Amino acid sequence: MGQAINVHPFDQAINLKAEASGLFSGHTTDDYANMIGPFGGVSAAQALQAVWLNPNRLGEPISCTVNYLAPIAKGAFLIRAKAVRTNRSTQHWWVEMLQADKSVFSATVVTAVRRETWGNIEFKMPEVPDPEDCKSEVIDFPVAWVNRYDMRPADSNSISISDPKGKDSNNLFWVKDVPSRTLDFPSLIALCDVFLPRIYRRKVQRVAVGTISMMVNFHISRIELEDLGPTYLLAQARGQVFVNGFFDQVAQLWTRSGKLIATSQQLVYYKE
Amino acid sequence: MGQAINVHPFDQAINLKAEASGLFSGHTTDDYANMIGPFGGVSAAQALQAVWLNPNRLGEPISCTVNYLAPIAKGAFLIRAKAVRTNRSTQHWWVEMLQADKSVFSATVVTAVRRETWGNIEFKMPEVPDPEDCKSEVIDFPVAWVNRYDMRPADSNSISISDPKGKDSNNLFWVKDVPSRTLDFPSLIALCDVFLPRIYRRKVQRVAVGTISMMVNFHISRIELEDLGPTYLLAQARGQVFVNGFFDQVAQLWTRSGKLIATSQQLVYYKE
Repeated sequence: MGQAINVHPFDQAINLKAEASGLFSGHTTDDYANMIGPFGGVSAAQALQAVWLNPNRLGEPISCTVNYLAPIAKGAFLIRAKAVRTNRSTQHWWVEMLQADKSVFSATVVTAVRRETWGNIEFKMPEVPDPEDCKSEVIDFPVAWVNRYDMRPADSNSISISDPKGKDSNNLFWVKDVPSRTLDFPSLIALCDVFLPRIYRRKVQRVAVGTISMMVNFHISRIELEDLGPTYLLAQARGQVFVNGFFDQVAQLWTRSGKLIATSQQLVYYKE
Repeated sequence: MGQAINVHPFDQAINLKAEASGLFSGHTTDDYANMIGPFGGVSAAQALQAVWLNPNRLGEPISCTVNYLAPIAKGAFLIRAKAVRTNRSTQHWWVEMLQADKSVFSATVVTAVRRETWGNIEFKMPEVPDPEDCKSEVIDFPVAWVNRYDMRPADSNSISISDPKGKDSNNLFWVKDVPSRTLDFPSLIALCDVFLPRIYRRKVQRVAVGTISMMVNFHISRIELEDLGPTYLLAQARGQVFVNGFFDQVAQLWTRSGKLIATSQQLVYYKE
């Protein structure tokens, strides 16, 4: 394969080649393969990367909503990123991923130049043991991408085994890329999708699932992410409601020092 | 004005005229005026209505993410709604609102044909008094749209006066259209934006704010909404984090019987 030494699998996964103004080509990678097609977090990361690479980009991502339109096939894809509106300090992007000339995935991305203001973390990080004092869970889910993350439950809930009482979909765990990698916006958005479908926590029987739409809001700058270095984040996810084929889950990611750096909501299809 | 008798102001606000395939014209209305331009919830409702009116629509809305690209001026607008992808049971839409040929607002909408499945409400409705036992708050906010809603705090927190301790942005209240109106998806998405900016609960001084992006997931069908008739919903909103010019808030809406029918997350700009 002539694979370069020391290239992180995540960097391979989000490696895009500029083809024309706002148009990039990429390729799915086996390292982040899901049941069908790639891990959705990586598709979101690729969309964000296409905006990041754009020379017209204003500021840094503050919000991104992705829509999974159709199964993404293993292989090559194109990504088109277009600035729909550029304001003085914010910019709105429309991103489409194409395979065989058809849209399979889309995203809206908002970038902004931030100013320093009063701030506050209202949703406090739960008190948990340090990641070094928690044990990595061997994730019981037969897909490649789970091996790209070290996940360590920070409470008594298993990540991949359903709640014995079937009542609570909550999970709280430390998570880090494998191998270790300094965080950036693409890896952070991927981490927002790292939770197994909440319905697996509720039901023993595993049903077909697929994310329909996911919003991620970022609360950190690129330089702050870089300063964190390769680090564990505390990840929390919870299902809000499951009804007639679709469920809703929310998620939060905190740094070790308790900074809430990403918040997310997603709607997921389930078959039963 | 020759205004038809008995047309609800909300129906006037979302009244769209088909101009061509997938293209509609509309007009902002004074009833839902905000500080600058219209109440954001009504813009979201107009986007949803454009999809609803489309003869090619498959099923009903399950998810909608709106992006406020620029101030929407008082007056006429065009809305273009395009089905980006149609699957067997889901459909993805791209919606743009234009003024003077420029995009001022966009939305992605997912519609779906639901099947009956196992379901569960994990985020339970808080125990609160009935709306008849709560008192309507006169909202201390000088914009027209607040008069289009009856808001009744269901706990000790005022909706429009900041928390005396400045620590908690939470609000919990019963809410209903004024005058009463049977719920539909447009009015439900508008209700998801009915919360005053969470920063007003935290800070006494009112700063300039504007929603950047809002996701709403629906957990109810049109016929179930219709069956509810004109009714109070219990609305809850909470700020998660405020940092460097943008804050994140989540919201839930329950029916009187405790059904969680809409969940939402939004990112809001604030100047300080």
